Amino acid sequence: MDAYQSLITHWRETSLLSSCAALLGWDERTYMPRAGSAHRAKQMALLARMTHERLTDPRIGDWLSQLEGATDSAEQAANVREIGRTHRRAVRVPARLVEELARVTTQAQEVWVEARAAADFRRFLPWLDRIVALKREEAEALGNTAHPYDALLEEYEPGSSSDAIERLFRALARELAPFAAKLFDAPRQPNESILRREFPVADQERFGRAVAEAMGFDFQAGRLDVTTHPFCSGIGPGDCRLTTRYDPNHFSSGFFGILHECGHGIYEQNLPREHFGTPLGTACSLGIHESQSRLWENFVGRSPEFWQHYFPKAQDAFPSLRDVRLEDFVLAVNRVGRTFIRVEADEVTYNLHIVLRFELEKNLIQGDLSPGDVPDAWNQRFHELLGVRPPNDREGCLQDIHWSFGGIGYFPTYALGNLYAAQFMEAARRDLGEAELAEDFRQGRFNRLREWLVSRIHRQGQLYRAEELCRQVTGADLNHQPFMRYLRGKYSRLYGVLPD
Amino acid sequence: MDAYQSLITHWRETSLLSSCAALLGWDERTYMPRAGSAHRAKQMALLARMTHERLTDPRIGDWLSQLEGATDSAEQAANVREIGRTHRRAVRVPARLVEELARVTTQAQEVWVEARAAADFRRFLPWLDRIVALKREEAEALGNTAHPYDALLEEYEPGSSSDAIERLFRALARELAPFAAKLFDAPRQPNESILRREFPVADQERFGRAVAEAMGFDFQAGRLDVTTHPFCSGIGPGDCRLTTRYDPNHFSSGFFGILHECGHGIYEQNLPREHFGTPLGTACSLGIHESQSRLWENFVGRSPEFWQHYFPKAQDAFPSLRDVRLEDFVLAVNRVGRTFIRVEADEVTYNLHIVLRFELEKNLIQGDLSPGDVPDAWNQRFHELLGVRPPNDREGCLQDIHWSFGGIGYFPTYALGNLYAAQFMEAARRDLGEAELAEDFRQGRFNRLREWLVSRIHRQGQLYRAEELCRQVTGADLNHQPFMRYLRGKYSRLYGVLPD
Repeated sequence: MDAYQSLITHWRETSLLSSCAALLGWDERTYMPRAGSAHRAKQMALLARMTHERLTDPRIGDWLSQLEGATDSAEQAANVREIGRTHRRAVRVPARLVEELARVTTQAQEVWVEARAAADFRRFLPWLDRIVALKREEAEALGNTAHPYDALLEEYEPGSSSDAIERLFRALARELAPFAAKLFDAPRQPNESILRREFPVADQERFGRAVAEAMGFDFQAGRLDVTTHPFCSGIGPGDCRLTTRYDPNHFSSGFFGILHECGHGIYEQNLPREHFGTPLGTACSLGIHESQSRLWENFVGRSPEFWQHYFPKAQDAFPSLRDVRLEDFVLAVNRVGRTFIRVEADEVTYNLHIVLRFELEKNLIQGDLSPGDVPDAWNQRFHELLGVRPPNDREGCLQDIHWSFGGIGYFPTYALGNLYAAQFMEAARRDLGEAELAEDFRQGRFNRLREWLVSRIHRQGQLYRAEELCRQVTGADLNHQPFMRYLRGKYSRLYGVLPD
Repeated sequence: MDAYQSLITHWRETSLLSSCAALLGWDERTYMPRAGSAHRAKQMALLARMTHERLTDPRIGDWLSQLEGATDSAEQAANVREIGRTHRRAVRVPARLVEELARVTTQAQEVWVEARAAADFRRFLPWLDRIVALKREEAEALGNTAHPYDALLEEYEPGSSSDAIERLFRALARELAPFAAKLFDAPRQPNESILRREFPVADQERFGRAVAEAMGFDFQAGRLDVTTHPFCSGIGPGDCRLTTRYDPNHFSSGFFGILHECGHGIYEQNLPREHFGTPLGTACSLGIHESQSRLWENFVGRSPEFWQHYFPKAQDAFPSLRDVRLEDFVLAVNRVGRTFIRVEADEVTYNLHIVLRFELEKNLIQGDLSPGDVPDAWNQRFHELLGVRPPNDREGCLQDIHWSFGGIGYFPTYALGNLYAAQFMEAARRDLGEAELAEDFRQGRFNRLREWLVSRIHRQGQLYRAEELCRQVTGADLNHQPFMRYLRGKYSRLYGVLPD
């Protein structure tokens, strides 16, 4: 075997081992009996250690040094590039730090649960202090970037940088905050109570599955189950699992949750299976992944055209909707408000929640913000962006689990996903015809859009980094304008305000 | 670390890795999407290979040679003894043979499915030929036994031998076949149609779970799911999973299936968790395991006393039973008949099915029976034991999957389980009081029996081999008399015949 074949064989097997951990992780969050958690933690730790041993195998370094700059094709070069990135990251962080982070974040998550319940930031502060210190140490060990934050960001969004994101977010917030404020004060407001009627869980499941199937999720090669915090897990070719949660008195959480995970799932199901276990068979980045979930959840699933087709079916499925008018329903599922909690935020304000978190965590890692000052900084910036102050830290800086598990650098990918989705949708309308695509949705047909996404994005795997993929697909660098055009067009009509 | 600590640490970690495969196996048979099977096969093959590498690690041989004859306690000696057995078996079989067996049996199982559906033994014959040849080769590689069959048997029932089983089964069949014949011709016969009424699946599940819980299966540390071929899987401490299948028009298959797996599950849940991953924390043998499932399924769950408590509850759960009398129901769930299919056989005739299989497979491995002669040998011996001839090979020698997956040596453990169960129950009645135990069942109380089983059997793990455990628990060698006494006592009363 030559170096390339050796490298790929080793890497595929490592991915196969990881995919066992993925199944155990799915089970842990769906069906595992409560008393099994201690044993599951041991299983996961063993698989993580074995995977880490394989990722840091010194032979990888030898193979890479033979291959870098000497590959036979763009495909090979992409595999070598991304394997090199992952291998070097794994090698650079000392085992002591990896273990310390695992230990501290496991305990910190427990403390965070208590601190959030008690709205008591002081209780969490020593742990946040420790985690920020460890993540700064990790960033230093990873090195090789303009800002320490970039080293952390690279885990989730390779090729991006805090400078680029900062420019993008600043331009976005400048236009988004005033537009959101205009909608808060618009004379036409939705009656959201129509979504808080009776929606029996079994009917929600049936309806959600039917829509996911129509969008193109393959249930022969996937599942939909119930969990506490919904996620999508691509176990491997032919096996992708969606999860959601149902509230029998709320339509949106279950239904749009399914659509969101379905968007992730369609991406996973259409990665090139012949490349499974190599970067070419892996999703491009978390930002691109999120673009697919947000695209199906919001750009399709919250569009007026979609509901022209599906609202009569929803009325069949749920008697509680029979006295509701289509336009009132569409306005209700597109309610915009001053929500304190990110995961409950609408598609207009959501990115403002992310801008806030990005600014704070970047400053924490750069040492420009002390963990003790987080609550004040949070509340002040929240007021600037959304016009209100959180009443307490439970609805403020304690609401997200991310920092407690050490996931600093993760938040920006949510907003990038929204921006990518908007830019992809503009390109899809250009390629497929704006009127034709709208007519597709009105007929409940999604195959043309899906096939466009599959060929342009899903089948590419990690051939390109996210920014380059965006240029290839849309002809332009990622920017905030398509997203703002989309919001202005849709929400001005819905709320009866002027676009600017 | 000394040799013992090193050995145990290595072995525990190997078990932890196996337990990941156990979870993947459970998922494969319950929730895995159909299209995921190819990927799952790759995951399982990788975990099997990694486990095998660890089992055959040469350091184990070094540790063992320091420890054998030089351990500090009976517990250490048991761990060293069983680890040594497993390690040597893994080392002795060459990798080429392991791979060939895996390859051939995977294909053979597919051919077997087709051959069985077509009742065409000729189609399966070349594969049976090949499997018998490979298993003889495996037995020779394992060596070290009086008969080659013993080497295969040792995988499932360590410490047993074909000579001992042959003596036991011959004595059993001599008494059992005529007693069964007497019941077939008894003037009082059950009306089994009362079990073939409407039994809605959701009600079956609720009822079965309630009984399993009353028997002592802990659902905080376990689950009950649906599958095609029911099994119980002990994943690890705090995580044991039962499966069953429901027929909405048959009471017995779902209900007694749950009780059977529940018996396995209670054993798994009460293994000493501090010894998980070592022989001391592992079930003694397949025969002992089966004794626990049969004990709860038959000795408890098919007893008249049990139904004195549960029949009124069953009538509450299933309106279709409301016009049925208790004594007719008890007779129906204890129906004895000339069944061709082993898995549908009653507790009287079941062991005759096993005697037949043991004789044939022993002769196949010893070279005294040619695979091509299996159908005739099967049908003739079946007629001797049960008085009828199977109408075709689907209902004869093609009915079981075991030979197609290479599981030669497995069948005897089913009958050993029944014999052990009878002998354990006699000892329990002696220790706990026959009248008191019967009264327990009439009150739906099972804690005294369960605690007796837990302390005498479950907590022992593999401290003793099965035969020695039996002597410790019952004061006697395993023999067929307790089983025959049990059958004669119960079935003579039920069917109104003389005990002999």
